[in-house]
Amino acid sequence: MIASSLPSRLSAVAALSASLFCTSLHAQAPLQIMPLPAHATIASGSFAVAGPLPVVFTGYKEPRLERARQRFLANVASRTGVPQWATALASAPVITIHTGGPSATVQQVADDESYKLQVTRSGITLDAPTPLGVMHGLQTLLQLIELTPTGFTIPAVTIDDAPRFPWRGLMVDSGRHFISLDVLYRTLDGMEATKLNVFHWHLSENQGFRLESKAFPLLTEKGSDGLYYTQQQAKEVIAYARDRGIRVIPEFDMPGHATAMFVGYPDLASGPGPYTIERQWGIFDPAMDPTRESTYKFLDKFFAEMTALFPDAYFHIGGDECNGKEWDRNPRIQEYMRAHNLKDDAALQAYFTTRVQELVTKHGKIPIGWDEVLQPNTPKQVMIQSWRGQESVADSAKRGHNVILSSGYYIDLSEPASQHYAVDPLGKAASLTPEEKSHILGGEATIWSEMVTSETIEGRIWPRTAAIAERLWSPQDVTDQASMYKRLAIAAQTLTWQGSPYLATSSNMIDRIANGKDSAPLRVLASVVEPPKEYARPDLKPYDSSSPMNLLVDAVSPESDTARNFRDLAARIASGTASPAEHAQARQWLILWRDNDAALQPTISSSALAAELAPISRNLHDSSTIGLTALDAIEQKKPLASATSSQQLAALKTLEAPQAVLLNQTVPGIEALVTAAGH
Amino acid sequence: MIASSLPSRLSAVAALSASLFCTSLHAQAPLQIMPLPAHATIASGSFAVAGPLPVVFTGYKEPRLERARQRFLANVASRTGVPQWATALASAPVITIHTGGPSATVQQVADDESYKLQVTRSGITLDAPTPLGVMHGLQTLLQLIELTPTGFTIPAVTIDDAPRFPWRGLMVDSGRHFISLDVLYRTLDGMEATKLNVFHWHLSENQGFRLESKAFPLLTEKGSDGLYYTQQQAKEVIAYARDRGIRVIPEFDMPGHATAMFVGYPDLASGPGPYTIERQWGIFDPAMDPTRESTYKFLDKFFAEMTALFPDAYFHIGGDECNGKEWDRNPRIQEYMRAHNLKDDAALQAYFTTRVQELVTKHGKIPIGWDEVLQPNTPKQVMIQSWRGQESVADSAKRGHNVILSSGYYIDLSEPASQHYAVDPLGKAASLTPEEKSHILGGEATIWSEMVTSETIEGRIWPRTAAIAERLWSPQDVTDQASMYKRLAIAAQTLTWQGSPYLATSSNMIDRIANGKDSAPLRVLASVVEPPKEYARPDLKPYDSSSPMNLLVDAVSPESDTARNFRDLAARIASGTASPAEHAQARQWLILWRDNDAALQPTISSSALAAELAPISRNLHDSSTIGLTALDAIEQKKPLASATSSQQLAALKTLEAPQAVLLNQTVPGIEALVTAAGH
Repeated sequence: MIASSLPSRLSAVAALSASLFCTSLHAQAPLQIMPLPAHATIASGSFAVAGPLPVVFTGYKEPRLERARQRFLANVASRTGVPQWATALASAPVITIHTGGPSATVQQVADDESYKLQVTRSGITLDAPTPLGVMHGLQTLLQLIELTPTGFTIPAVTIDDAPRFPWRGLMVDSGRHFISLDVLYRTLDGMEATKLNVFHWHLSENQGFRLESKAFPLLTEKGSDGLYYTQQQAKEVIAYARDRGIRVIPEFDMPGHATAMFVGYPDLASGPGPYTIERQWGIFDPAMDPTRESTYKFLDKFFAEMTALFPDAYFHIGGDECNGKEWDRNPRIQEYMRAHNLKDDAALQAYFTTRVQELVTKHGKIPIGWDEVLQPNTPKQVMIQSWRGQESVADSAKRGHNVILSSGYYIDLSEPASQHYAVDPLGKAASLTPEEKSHILGGEATIWSEMVTSETIEGRIWPRTAAIAERLWSPQDVTDQASMYKRLAIAAQTLTWQGSPYLATSSNMIDRIANGKDSAPLRVLASVVEPPKEYARPDLKPYDSSSPMNLLVDAVSPESDTARNFRDLAARIASGTASPAEHAQARQWLILWRDNDAALQPTISSSALAAELAPISRNLHDSSTIGLTALDAIEQKKPLASATSSQQLAALKTLEAPQAVLLNQTVPGIEALVTAAGH
Repeated sequence: MIASSLPSRLSAVAALSASLFCTSLHAQAPLQIMPLPAHATIASGSFAVAGPLPVVFTGYKEPRLERARQRFLANVASRTGVPQWATALASAPVITIHTGGPSATVQQVADDESYKLQVTRSGITLDAPTPLGVMHGLQTLLQLIELTPTGFTIPAVTIDDAPRFPWRGLMVDSGRHFISLDVLYRTLDGMEATKLNVFHWHLSENQGFRLESKAFPLLTEKGSDGLYYTQQQAKEVIAYARDRGIRVIPEFDMPGHATAMFVGYPDLASGPGPYTIERQWGIFDPAMDPTRESTYKFLDKFFAEMTALFPDAYFHIGGDECNGKEWDRNPRIQEYMRAHNLKDDAALQAYFTTRVQELVTKHGKIPIGWDEVLQPNTPKQVMIQSWRGQESVADSAKRGHNVILSSGYYIDLSEPASQHYAVDPLGKAASLTPEEKSHILGGEATIWSEMVTSETIEGRIWPRTAAIAERLWSPQDVTDQASMYKRLAIAAQTLTWQGSPYLATSSNMIDRIANGKDSAPLRVLASVVEPPKEYARPDLKPYDSSSPMNLLVDAVSPESDTARNFRDLAARIASGTASPAEHAQARQWLILWRDNDAALQPTISSSALAAELAPISRNLHDSSTIGLTALDAIEQKKPLASATSSQQLAALKTLEAPQAVLLNQTVPGIEALVTAAGH
């Protein structure tokens, strides 16, 4: 045997390299579930999942419960690999579910979603007032399954759970990029897994009108590029959602964000036309004409059709980001405004909103709009969705409007889960009375789709949306970030068991870029870079609605687990609290990153999709080289000269800038090392 | 900077460790497609895929072609990430498809599947007599797309292609384990990608009857555990298959393999009953009673229903593995045999088969049966499917029966692709006349489902079935194994682009076993082990129809690419033709494998699914240790003592034996090293 000491170190690094891509899931008890329940008491012992899990229903019964049972068993089988088809052959009932009664025929905000779950060594009982609680309880039960040295088990526990907020939503923008139905179905599966209960379906945009209208067929014939949902498909989505305890609320945005409607129906608009589908991203001038009765006649008929299709009590009419320029340019509209004493565009929009609200109300629905619809005379029954922030939420509630928060939950902006997790719908509501607070119904994550396609959207939605789901479900004091991240990793795995392909899709996209070369160096780079934050991306490179989204920025997670872990590690090293093993790990990472640039060259030179990665790969090399110098200085207790330290910090500042539309997220951790090395 | 020479070696091993799991795809031209076409001429230059690819049809048109176009564009988008929805906005037609005329209303064996494809720098033309050729040509075109340093391109080429055999099938056994519909749909997608054209659907078994019968509802009510396809679902599968140029042939196995039918209809059987669904694997005694007219009355009505449901001209009635024991035990049947001069069980089965054939023929179908149905008086029109072998195929053809080969194509037996690839339907047909040879229509891969579930079946079907598809499509002299394996790796990637999740599923199963621990050591082990071959698996451990299939043997590929590559490497080292880099690679592998046992221990001790892996992991450690000794001896030119060499070869013999129902497939390569080291 030769070189026996070398190989063991070699294989340690080989293992480390692979471990960049996975996170330890079972580092500690207690409950590793997300969202955390309102109350839980952990007992000793556990229930063994050794074979089929028979489920017996008592109390109220309906077909939806039977389908929930089948879904539960399919998920148990998927989680464990233990077949669940033969439950009828098993001897005793092991899961007894008691349902008090039905939920509302059309799911309502006020529906009771609570449940009680008890797991003992000998059996499991789930008790809920309605099928909604049963479904939530079954998701909790699924997440409780764990693999131990002796087999699959569910820890003995008593859970008494109910959501903090009744409105826990996810808005998907099918307008800017059409999102395929299979993605929507899987998104609803993920919402069920995370106990979200409102699917807000953004169906019209400047770039596309996405729902069949029988009354106005030109909406899709001319406004969708052929990419739209039929009414039958929408019905199936609604039924699928109801089966999972999820309401479906359509949004048809107006008076702005409606160019695609004007392609087929130019008379709706305020400009001379003709209109074409918008191919660029941004805020555009076209807007509905609020001054013509024909507009309201159109909308009346349109709402009649759409409110009949969507059973939910709420109906979203958008109302955001109308810049008024088409109004300003139209003399007839200007004349109308003077004649009717509408002093500015805001007043004209308020007039329009009032008319639209009346129509929506006439068709039996409660209107929802974005902040802009809230005007001095807006009727109390109009609900507000706030993209402006917690103050706006508190203000709306004070004024007696039901309101939900979306500001802070824009998951298209590639922010870390911790940032969303820290945002509370009641964040600025301290001064509100309990009655005023009760108007704050919850919140909605939103995935606007300028920068996502059907291929990439799931990797943007998950797993971060699970952190928002916890914010909206769990008690207000559930705020520990470390716990959240630990459980978020488990939630990611749960989503995978339940059929979400988002991790595999990301991996496939990396393989596509790698173009048959060894993909390991590309995965190393992918593990530490992130997309630019907020709205920086289109400033770095032009995008339109037909831009391929097939580069590394589209494949990577919006949040790098490795970079976050490295940042934590660097902080411990900087504070002198890191163990020798942690020092060694930091060094191994830095060496891996530094040397990765050379390893990536064959990919860069063979693949057009990788060609732009040369500078960001070099960037990682440079930052890691600096990091190793700092680590040496710390470990050898030879502080860096002040000039060196300043020079390196300046260099790191430069390396923070995006390249290939990507951020090297190792830089903050390395900055911490350099700063510490300078003392 | 410290230790700069060490880290570069470290990262080389880190990269190597990852490269175990991927294969270089573009090692060489020419055409990297599978199956290879009959004729191809490669020109210079290429066609750039920079945006949407408009497709224009000329000649015969039908909706199936439009759906094929949409599927093609979706696959182009999936392969490239370049959106294809805006083809209507693109300027010029770039793909012109001319279709001569329709294929048969019900797809036939005689349908023309040929096509001509020409790719130039300026455009693409596809010309085919029927839509079937168009679909095949589009699959070829998809596979021709490659990523270069400058973008996605299709090499300029002229292809004139047609299949060697008209019957290129895959049999899926939905009887023993129910296979979910989504798996079947994806399987049909994979068949389209590999130009297979017969989906043989094995629908009844001792363990389950899987298709709704309205005439005999107890078949599924009592014989399926609730796991069956409705007739509506079957119709949708048939339509989906037709859209992809695939015929669907149902098989209802009889007189044996029919226990599940007897649960609801015990009078069909030859024993006293009652019957229950069989839970064990094997050959069982229950058999239809051939002596009662009521049996044929039942089958007449059953065939009337099923032949109406399945439009194909062929209808499979099984006929295999009836052991006759129930007949032997039934005095009334014995009396009947004497009275009718049926001298033994074979004669009785021949009588039954004749009656069944008559019924199938009466309902307008051509019967197919396994070898056993071929008896001296079997009508010529009965087609034979051979599980017995090439001689049996030649014999059937000589006797004037159409025949297909399945022996050698049993993909459930975990044999390497090369083994299937070497089997030719005409392998024993040298002495046949051309007319006799023309009866050999092709072959079918078969996936019997004792050892697969819906979760694992796709990882058993793919990619090896693509090698069989090439055997059946491409010219007889396309037999080069190295080329096949290179293109098989690309085919695996193509299947992934087209939506097959089989690689991700395997990865998820490994994650399940790893149980939140670093999965890298488990992946190292997984990369070099294989399931036992042929029927060895149930001898190593008991299995029945409810056994979980969630262990490493179920997660790994039936054929280890790494082990095959190592075997090739070892052969080069043994023959003295390996380069220094190859020596270094062999050493790195052996060190990785040797040290993996220690790295795997945390997983083994935490996961019940990994617990049984201790001995096979130690086995890999032991074989690698021997391999390193041998490599040292070779490299240091110090031959092993004869006693040492013999001892090590004996130890390797022991290590060849399966452990944890897995084979350590590094052993053959290591044996080659030890043998070479002894010289």
